[in-house]
Amino acid sequence: MKDPIRPTDDDARVLARQLLDGAGHGALGTFEPGTGAPMVTRVAVAMDAGGAPVMLISDLSLHARALREDPRCSLLAGEPGPKGDALTWPRLTLQAKAEFVPRSNALRQLWLERHPKAALYVDFADFNFVRLAPLHAHLNGGFGKAYRLEAADLLPGMQKRPDPKDPAAG
Amino acid sequence: MKDPIRPTDDDARVLARQLLDGAGHGALGTFEPGTGAPMVTRVAVAMDAGGAPVMLISDLSLHARALREDPRCSLLAGEPGPKGDALTWPRLTLQAKAEFVPRSNALRQLWLERHPKAALYVDFADFNFVRLAPLHAHLNGGFGKAYRLEAADLLPGMQKRPDPKDPAAG
Repeated sequence: MKDPIRPTDDDARVLARQLLDGAGHGALGTFEPGTGAPMVTRVAVAMDAGGAPVMLISDLSLHARALREDPRCSLLAGEPGPKGDALTWPRLTLQAKAEFVPRSNALRQLWLERHPKAALYVDFADFNFVRLAPLHAHLNGGFGKAYRLEAADLLPGMQKRPDPKDPAAG
Repeated sequence: MKDPIRPTDDDARVLARQLLDGAGHGALGTFEPGTGAPMVTRVAVAMDAGGAPVMLISDLSLHARALREDPRCSLLAGEPGPKGDALTWPRLTLQAKAEFVPRSNALRQLWLERHPKAALYVDFADFNFVRLAPLHAHLNGGFGKAYRLEAADLLPGMQKRPDPKDPAAG
């Protein structure tokens, strides 16, 4: 069977970034507490200054419990548009490691800029910020347009580094 | 910490059914091939006569490979509406076991009624129907409205069975 994965190019990198930056929410994959099976729940997200997704989740939620037991997770970003086959719309599957991060004014501000209605609960004691450190990703740009991206393809700070092997970058 | 799970009632059962029956697509959680980490991808779905989700997936897809290695999976159903905090909209996390089922005219017809545009690829040799046999589910009806449902709460055929312990059911 032929390999359906295309070589990663700048179009794929730009699309992946657009899908992340445009995402206000996504589908989070974790290990279900008790069974260890995959479990998918909805989460709100915002991108931090480095381009990584941040979530604000309650300790009462199943996914918070799941991530405290095992930080390996996945985030599906990119919603289908209103028309046509949902599978023709692009989406990104980000594979990541979840890191509970201390509350800060910067994070609180980042969150409220993206999610103003979260002012109702952002300061509740059971809510925590969790950063998703990107490992790699599967990009689906529509039927037959599959790519695998590495963390360096996803994070804008890393993309801007000159490639030492590229003579034009010097 | 208090238990945030409410007792399951008929309102919860009806909402769960509505979320499944209304879903044309969802977010599928599987084990990522190679790493075993959670992986979330988008899939199209349709409900079969018994109320279980059916998918049509290509053998070229990562999730098909994942499910052939381990059939344990999760489906997030129920899209947020266009306004307000995405987390106030109800959604269902269905925990299931995936079963590759032989192609049949009935399944093909079921699929094309829900997804007419799939006529373009429904007969491709690499596409297979996969049924998600429900195990249990986590229903989130909005903030603070969490329920756990069992398979019998989810499948309409099972809900209609008279309860032998209920004198009114005889």
